[in-house]
Amino acid sequence: MLNKVSNTSGALNTSIRMAEWCIENEDRIDVSATQSKYSRTVNLEDYVNPPKSEKAALLILNQAIGTPNLFLKLWNKYPLRVCADGGANRLYELFEKNEDARSKYLPDYIIGDFDSLKPHVGEYYQKSGVPLIKQETQYSTDFSKCLCLIALHIYSGSFRDKIVNQQTIEAYSGIHDLYDAMLKDSNIIIPKSIRLLAIGAIDGRFDQTIHSITQLYQLSVKESLFNLCYLSATDLIFLISPGGVLIEYSKKFRDECIGCCGLLPLGGPTEIYETRGLKWDVGNWYTSIASGKVSSSNRFSGIDKCFVDCKEGIVMNIEVFTDKLYNYI
Amino acid sequence: MLNKVSNTSGALNTSIRMAEWCIENEDRIDVSATQSKYSRTVNLEDYVNPPKSEKAALLILNQAIGTPNLFLKLWNKYPLRVCADGGANRLYELFEKNEDARSKYLPDYIIGDFDSLKPHVGEYYQKSGVPLIKQETQYSTDFSKCLCLIALHIYSGSFRDKIVNQQTIEAYSGIHDLYDAMLKDSNIIIPKSIRLLAIGAIDGRFDQTIHSITQLYQLSVKESLFNLCYLSATDLIFLISPGGVLIEYSKKFRDECIGCCGLLPLGGPTEIYETRGLKWDVGNWYTSIASGKVSSSNRFSGIDKCFVDCKEGIVMNIEVFTDKLYNYI
Repeated sequence: MLNKVSNTSGALNTSIRMAEWCIENEDRIDVSATQSKYSRTVNLEDYVNPPKSEKAALLILNQAIGTPNLFLKLWNKYPLRVCADGGANRLYELFEKNEDARSKYLPDYIIGDFDSLKPHVGEYYQKSGVPLIKQETQYSTDFSKCLCLIALHIYSGSFRDKIVNQQTIEAYSGIHDLYDAMLKDSNIIIPKSIRLLAIGAIDGRFDQTIHSITQLYQLSVKESLFNLCYLSATDLIFLISPGGVLIEYSKKFRDECIGCCGLLPLGGPTEIYETRGLKWDVGNWYTSIASGKVSSSNRFSGIDKCFVDCKEGIVMNIEVFTDKLYNYI
Repeated sequence: MLNKVSNTSGALNTSIRMAEWCIENEDRIDVSATQSKYSRTVNLEDYVNPPKSEKAALLILNQAIGTPNLFLKLWNKYPLRVCADGGANRLYELFEKNEDARSKYLPDYIIGDFDSLKPHVGEYYQKSGVPLIKQETQYSTDFSKCLCLIALHIYSGSFRDKIVNQQTIEAYSGIHDLYDAMLKDSNIIIPKSIRLLAIGAIDGRFDQTIHSITQLYQLSVKESLFNLCYLSATDLIFLISPGGVLIEYSKKFRDECIGCCGLLPLGGPTEIYETRGLKWDVGNWYTSIASGKVSSSNRFSGIDKCFVDCKEGIVMNIEVFTDKLYNYI
């Protein structure tokens, strides 16, 4: 709604700033991508349907899986699935009434300090041949232990050999040590970033939600190995990095699967240089949580693409209709 | 956990800054309040058990009510209950199997642009004598329409008379006009801020959650009439304003009803000057979402109080065990 982006509290000094603007577009407009410079392309559908050519992993964190049918479909689309500690409980509990199905959805790894993993759940997966990697250090989160593990699994043959041969990973911070060693190993070439879809990162305790948001910023650095997106019960959430991002999607995906969106300056006050293809496009637009001037309840007008250029990284959420998405992918 | 507050990425220039510190306390420590200056006291229990001497209102927003038993107990503790638009649907749906109870939990008002209010719900409450106040303007949110209404109800006798006499409130932005007029009316004395507990502000679409967070900052200005707190299915969430805040609670409340907490710099990077009474206390501590240096998964060590002093406003979340809280209040 217009009101959501029209709060102009915090007077602008127009003598030194370009005049800010906000326009309301028609519901469907044609956005020509070539008009603006962009440094990165995001295809929304790739988050839920990762291209076969890409390295990709599904990460299951410790929150109830709110959209079980969609989750199981996504499971089959991701070649690697990792449970962070109590995330394994949530996977296990998904099959409370179907033990047979449980044995067909075994994660590739369970990793963490195991302060949340229920003993009977750990036992079940261990008996089923899933590697359980206990990492006791409290100087990193279960989330970052998962990241190291996923990178090792994808890029280090010697790590995979270790796992196959059931060699022990040092239980305090072995996974970090192996990861650091891999990064220093000039024989290992890391060609491309890993697509990572994380489930259960947003819907729980609020400080955990915000901790997940910090990870989006942490993994947006240039040398990052990961292209991270969260799927909650209501949204896809990812970071729009500076330098211009072109967001692509099919007309059908736009029309059927997604609803409202927001551009959320959670890293701090920043400027949106320009958007093109939103219902309410803005330009030279200072945005901050503290001022309340935030583009929320917006949506995509661009028929098959949208362009966002901002000074610093900004979090984008896109409402997904999970039942429709289930049918679509 | 220590790791959650010990990330020191972003080097400190110690020549011009006080050295930052982080200490791990025992699980229960005595915090003497008088050692530090504080400008405000927050009693945690008052959020769920508002003192009879205070003006207070319960605001119901448009998200499924995840903790129905607790909600109904809170309902009885708040003298004024207002539904924002589709919030009335959620209240109505709470009594799907108990029409008799539905008629006992009638809100004092339903207000909004009514784009979400279901016709049969509106009809039910209208027939039951609840004032439905349609406000069409899109230049303010349903949330801010509620704020104006609540202030008018509490402080303006002439507004209450209007309602009793079923006089029409102008349907575009009448509530804002009446509110503005009230603020200018020197005959109306507004002695104290209104305690406001909002339900359904945090658990839904992520841009709506963040919009709710902007409201915490908006209502933290000195002249604000409101003392706002959110209750989600997992947390109490409120703003720690600058100037030092003493957070009080009973030992029993601490032991039984609350768990982890976080100090979340959602308004932008800031400095926590000092905390005392957290499991991991910090001082001269620069915190930001983008750096990932955020105090999360912390908890209260102070037996009956805790002190937080920060440069700018910072969002605090406190995990609540809703079933325990239900028994406690």
